[in-house]
Amino acid sequence: MKLPVSTEWLLHCAATLAQLEPGASASAAQLARYFDLPAAYLAKQLQELVKAGVLTATTGPRGGFRLARPASEITLLRIVEAVDGTAGPYECREIRQQGRGALPPEQCQNTCILAEKMAEAHEAWRRSLAGVSLADIIATLPATTPARTRSRLT
Amino acid sequence: MKLPVSTEWLLHCAATLAQLEPGASASAAQLARYFDLPAAYLAKQLQELVKAGVLTATTGPRGGFRLARPASEITLLRIVEAVDGTAGPYECREIRQQGRGALPPEQCQNTCILAEKMAEAHEAWRRSLAGVSLADIIATLPATTPARTRSRLT
Ligand code: FES
Ligand code: FES
Repeated sequence: MKLPVSTEWLLHCAATLAQLEPGASASAAQLARYFDLPAAYLAKQLQELVKAGVLTATTGPRGGFRLARPASEITLLRIVEAVDGTAGPYECREIRQQGRGALPPEQCQNTCILAEKMAEAHEAWRRSLAGVSLADIIATLPATTPARTRSRLT
Repeated sequence: MKLPVSTEWLLHCAATLAQLEPGASASAAQLARYFDLPAAYLAKQLQELVKAGVLTATTGPRGGFRLARPASEITLLRIVEAVDGTAGPYECREIRQQGRGALPPEQCQNTCILAEKMAEAHEAWRRSLAGVSLADIIATLPATTPARTRSRLT
């Protein structure tokens, strides 16, 4: 199981935007230069974060992207699920209902215990990522980092 | 991120073998009929469980597969990682070290905080699956299930 390569891009772009002055924004081109990423593809991915309510896109000559809400309210889960969707990695195709061992439908009204345990593991993963916000991430950075970030975002 | 379709097959095959009488085994062909799965491909996948120490392959006319250890010592994690490997879904390609924002190598001796948080989430997932054994799964089945399973595994 693999998350898309762009997951790392968007986590870092969101963490970068969380270091701007209030009200400031950065364009896809600026972010692409900052991380040496393909600008057009990055721009498309940033739009996914807009759709997910993580970023706001502003237009005009100084337009770009900024956080749509306080950094403390944007969790890593929200960013990761904006990139990859909310489905868990395990797919149950109800194999308990096929073949010589097939269980009758009336014994399959509850979720299969194996699918249930796989779903619980996915929930543990989600809870872990839901417990970390961009504000938590920024709080771990050296105090000088945000000023450096802003100065290099050109 | 997706786990292979065969993850469901092998979880169910292992749970099926956990319902046999001590010392009994079942062949790939029997398991394939039981779940209506492609026998040759299933046989290959079962060999992965042998390599992982979950199953033992026995040879001879009544040969087949059986659990390599007590069901209480075989966790869902072990089965899932035998199928899909142990790598987490998130790949850090060190984008913090590239582009205009590149951090100098001396500031990158620790794992990036974002990669660290993604790894923590993967560990939460692993812990969840490591906490469930095949014995736990079998204990949730109706008391009549193992006899039915054995009688249909022909
Ligand atoms: S039937 Fe799908 S996990 Fe059991
Ligand atoms: S450099 Fe890879 S997650 Fe930060």
